[in-house]
Amino acid sequence: MSKQEIVLTPVPGAGCCAPISDTALDPAGAAEGAVVFKALADPIRLRLFSIITSAGDEVCVCDLTPQFDVSGPTISHHLKVLREAGLVDCERRGTWVYYWPVPERLQWIAGLLAVPETTSAH
Amino acid sequence: MSKQEIVLTPVPGAGCCAPISDTALDPAGAAEGAVVFKALADPIRLRLFSIITSAGDEVCVCDLTPQFDVSGPTISHHLKVLREAGLVDCERRGTWVYYWPVPERLQWIAGLLAVPETTSAH
Repeated sequence: MSKQEIVLTPVPGAGCCAPISDTALDPAGAAEGAVVFKALADPIRLRLFSIITSAGDEVCVCDLTPQFDVSGPTISHHLKVLREAGLVDCERRGTWVYYWPVPERLQWIAGLLAVPETTSAH
Repeated sequence: MSKQEIVLTPVPGAGCCAPISDTALDPAGAAEGAVVFKALADPIRLRLFSIITSAGDEVCVCDLTPQFDVSGPTISHHLKVLREAGLVDCERRGTWVYYWPVPERLQWIAGLLAVPETTSAH
């Protein structure tokens, strides 16, 4: 769609343009989503999350910690934030804790990032 | 995959488990991604972003502002943060500024959230 072809339909009494889609997040959904994105808005947490999602299997915390220049307790704190945001889940087995992503949560987020075809031509 | 079927292959000299995928974000990518997620980690910005992506067309700022209980300049500030994070782009035409999502950026983020099939059975 070129700039010249854009037609914004005036709606009487409704401002200058056509009504906006009602499929957008409502304030409650936006508040929930903001918490999830805040959990990912830290370089260490995002790398932890990326390692866990890209591993193709669950990941032992013993394999996460050595990849960062911060302490084990700091890594544990960041993993707790990811877990509380519903992005990962974990289970302790023996000495170690194992982490895996929560697909339902990631699909929910991915839905927020989906762009309708009609806007992709800019 | 049940818990009982999980086999973590020991690798000599490499900790307790199999090597982790090298497709995860590196520190530079994580730093860039964290900036993008920080832009989405605010309820007003996330709602603005959701309205823009779900509209199916570009959105006039004149249709965004009335949906929020904050001032026009505050909305403009939040839109600027989204734009600087590469999530939306805009163009002024006459009195109004029009916003649309940047599909390439959203696809990059969606890639970070993709979960391999093998981890989806938890």
